[in-house]
Amino acid sequence: MKLLSFLRDGIETWGVVVGDGVVDLGKVTSYASLAEFIASDDYARRDEIVAGKAADLPLDGLVYLPVITRPEKIVCAVRNYMDHHQEVLAMGMQRELSEFPPIFLRVWRSQVGHDQPIIRPRVSESLDWEGEIAVIIGKGGRDIAEQDVYDHVAGYSIYNDASVREWQFHAKQIASGKNFEGTGAFGPYMVTADEIDPTRALKLETRLNGQVVQSSNSSYMIFSIPRLINYASTIFTLAPGDVIVTGTPGGVGFSRKPPMYMKPGDVVEVEIEALGLLRNRIEAQK
Amino acid sequence: MKLLSFLRDGIETWGVVVGDGVVDLGKVTSYASLAEFIASDDYARRDEIVAGKAADLPLDGLVYLPVITRPEKIVCAVRNYMDHHQEVLAMGMQRELSEFPPIFLRVWRSQVGHDQPIIRPRVSESLDWEGEIAVIIGKGGRDIAEQDVYDHVAGYSIYNDASVREWQFHAKQIASGKNFEGTGAFGPYMVTADEIDPTRALKLETRLNGQVVQSSNSSYMIFSIPRLINYASTIFTLAPGDVIVTGTPGGVGFSRKPPMYMKPGDVVEVEIEALGLLRNRIEAQK
Repeated sequence: MKLLSFLRDGIETWGVVVGDGVVDLGKVTSYASLAEFIASDDYARRDEIVAGKAADLPLDGLVYLPVITRPEKIVCAVRNYMDHHQEVLAMGMQRELSEFPPIFLRVWRSQVGHDQPIIRPRVSESLDWEGEIAVIIGKGGRDIAEQDVYDHVAGYSIYNDASVREWQFHAKQIASGKNFEGTGAFGPYMVTADEIDPTRALKLETRLNGQVVQSSNSSYMIFSIPRLINYASTIFTLAPGDVIVTGTPGGVGFSRKPPMYMKPGDVVEVEIEALGLLRNRIEAQK
Repeated sequence: MKLLSFLRDGIETWGVVVGDGVVDLGKVTSYASLAEFIASDDYARRDEIVAGKAADLPLDGLVYLPVITRPEKIVCAVRNYMDHHQEVLAMGMQRELSEFPPIFLRVWRSQVGHDQPIIRPRVSESLDWEGEIAVIIGKGGRDIAEQDVYDHVAGYSIYNDASVREWQFHAKQIASGKNFEGTGAFGPYMVTADEIDPTRALKLETRLNGQVVQSSNSSYMIFSIPRLINYASTIFTLAPGDVIVTGTPGGVGFSRKPPMYMKPGDVVEVEIEALGLLRNRIEAQK
């Protein structure tokens, strides 16, 4: 099942993809957001709730919102693909593989939906792509053991953790370059966990104006999804709708000679096997 | 005026300190939280709203909540006091003064109120104190110029940015050690901006079991409050109730020989001139 958030007549709602349309489930349930639905007991009854419903709106022309519009937490992994780690070393940067997953946080306000513009801020031209697998937490919890992690995963989606490199490298802490408004693209939808075999390597491809710039698969991941969730949940209670963004593979723009960045008018696509295609046009901050 | 959040009969509310008691303003206004009140037009009418009201509850025995219970963003400055920067250099750590304010993010779930326990997690004994001035955003905004910053400040409070050092140093990114649940003490109340001259150096003292461990003042701040707000608001829109935690002075526990950490049963106090006294007992994670 593919669940998603979108605007209908300018108001946030959420629903399910059926054929080439969406059923507006915000209208027929008591849940105002997909996150609320995921947190509810009704989430387990989702097949029953969706059964027999016809699409209310076509996918074509839909105004997508980030899959989870205001996650309580967005926990992102740093250099979590071996091919990306190696390209960073090849640039001469001093980086080590750490014993623990390096993480940073994004704020929900940095997010944008599928088909919505990623915003290049006025202050820098160094806007780079990072295609990533996003994991959406279902059942919350603290101190989740690695073997229990999949009891806590609602589904998977695609994230473009677009980064303003100049600001990312203002200091050792990279949060500043990772949180610009309109840079965290998240969509188009969440594929529910029952449809994904998490132990399988998923192909990931990022394209800029049709040119393949990242081509890898999740077998290059350094810290696994179970380890990332175990680590984050040791720090704090994970809540339904929290998002774990699992890191990007090699091929990012700042590692190229010369560096290659996204500029207004460009179209960036992240396609991940079984999870769909996330497409965004770049616009300049107004 | 001193505004604060607290529990009444187990339910979140907020109010104002009057003498040795508090007026429950959640009960007599339509705002469910202090953040909602700060965001409202009525915030400018606060004197009128409070006038003539008698305390509903004594301060003694009050169950304090973090001043802002669920800030959309908590932006924290790293090594932002010259005396702290110098003690870190004296430890032999390679750190530079950067041209831009180094920042990281906290999640609201890491917060605790005044008089509530700070929790030492099971996974580490390296729980350290960091007394800091907290700035609470009133009017939101993006790209706020330094000279306009004080139009956007609702008030000031005290933060103990308690840090699990071992986890903070798991990787270059310090978010993991800075976000443990029950470590971000915030209170006891917000002093409204009209009562504070922000250009004045405020004395800051942190005590562990009565022993002074930090004694400094805000004149040692490297990046000023206007610069921190300007920088953060270049990245994203600041919202009412957002919190800027401005960094800690010298005297933290991990810089001592031998290092000194907080353990269950200890009492940590942060006292800042004009802003009050934030006190928390340390408890072990259950």
